[in-house]
Amino acid sequence: MNILLTNDDGIYSEGIRALYRSLKTIGNVTVVAPDTERSAVGHAITLSDPLRVKKVKRDGAFFGYATTGTPADCVKLAIWAILKKKPDMVVSGINLGPNTGYSVLYSGTVSGATEGAIIGIPSFAISLATFENPDYAVAADFAKKLAKKILANEGLPQGTLLNVNIPVVDKKRIKGVKIVRQSKTAIKERFDKREDPHKRTYYWLTGEVIESDGQKDADIEAIRQNYISITPIHCDMTNYEFMGNLKKWKI
Amino acid sequence: MNILLTNDDGIYSEGIRALYRSLKTIGNVTVVAPDTERSAVGHAITLSDPLRVKKVKRDGAFFGYATTGTPADCVKLAIWAILKKKPDMVVSGINLGPNTGYSVLYSGTVSGATEGAIIGIPSFAISLATFENPDYAVAADFAKKLAKKILANEGLPQGTLLNVNIPVVDKKRIKGVKIVRQSKTAIKERFDKREDPHKRTYYWLTGEVIESDGQKDADIEAIRQNYISITPIHCDMTNYEFMGNLKKWKI
Repeated sequence: MNILLTNDDGIYSEGIRALYRSLKTIGNVTVVAPDTERSAVGHAITLSDPLRVKKVKRDGAFFGYATTGTPADCVKLAIWAILKKKPDMVVSGINLGPNTGYSVLYSGTVSGATEGAIIGIPSFAISLATFENPDYAVAADFAKKLAKKILANEGLPQGTLLNVNIPVVDKKRIKGVKIVRQSKTAIKERFDKREDPHKRTYYWLTGEVIESDGQKDADIEAIRQNYISITPIHCDMTNYEFMGNLKKWKI
Repeated sequence: MNILLTNDDGIYSEGIRALYRSLKTIGNVTVVAPDTERSAVGHAITLSDPLRVKKVKRDGAFFGYATTGTPADCVKLAIWAILKKKPDMVVSGINLGPNTGYSVLYSGTVSGATEGAIIGIPSFAISLATFENPDYAVAADFAKKLAKKILANEGLPQGTLLNVNIPVVDKKRIKGVKIVRQSKTAIKERFDKREDPHKRTYYWLTGEVIESDGQKDADIEAIRQNYISITPIHCDMTNYEFMGNLKKWKI
């Protein structure tokens, strides 16, 4: 199995290294990832600038290709310019921090896997639901298991990827895997209004992650209850349910 | 009616000016838009840099606020920091170029309206299906009609926006409005591999827009047949259809 790895925390992050070490026990792994952190880039792609690619060593050996692009750029570049043949799977992560609810739309990690799904390759994104003291072992192990499971089930529907979030508790305390929907919850946001040393105003986005939203069949609550959450995400954003109603508007 | 306008072509573009002139005949319009072009930024938001806001004049009068952020940043900034009260509607555009099929995921214009929908405000994105010789008159007129229609129908479901594309033909040749799904078509992509004056390699993303994909109930074909296309888009990307199947995998 040929596996392409990317992420949005950058090629030098610990999360992608843990994923690399785990997945190379089951396949040939190629890493193509951003040269620095690209969090919250959404599904951005680079049209107005050229992209550069650089070989990167880690732990004394060749590790992968660093690019000046976003996670979506990395997957495109890997498939259309770097790899000799299309990979069998795209894996994005391990992200430091959860990607749940409406945050899925902002996530660079998810967009790496989305790009794989658009191109028609079975893909998943994997995130660790913490910003502090990460231990990537459980996530790295689970990624290996999931990759084999996807292969055994002959892939995923065209344009669909899996979004995986791992709770941060001892392996023994993880209750299992839950297939859940994306929660309809957004981050509670606000802006800090500040003044720079030259007395000019600037704004900085901040806010609180929602720890619990009471939506029991959705990702945020599943993780809070110590389940690994898996949400199948697709690139067709049509609200089919509302189409009939909208037709009645007679615009 | 208080209307917030944004776009991804930047505050100095012709599209947003046409929209402004049209919508100010039916409400109070506030423009908060990127200071330069931010195409294909997806649903990117700016976390690692401060944002700045500058008042901009056009045609000799105050026009709106230019920000250093993306379209999604602009809507957040407008609502959480600039406006005194939440607007009744968010309109994003008029984009130069269509936003159809999987391009919806890459579109900064759509992401401006998506941000409005996440915050719970009726929102739509409007794009002109051409890159050349744009005539914004039909689109600007239609935006006005649609804004009134949304208000008359008491808004849109939470988390749902409308994605509108306008064909570029004489007004008389437009056949009407079609409510359609997002096409499952991606742009045909490739990279130009080039050498800079210092003999270093760089890559530039390029590709062809798909003019026809044969999906009759979807956006690309509707526009090609000279219909205005409207697709209700929602922020819940869960593939519900596949959930049952995935549960059977027993991961």
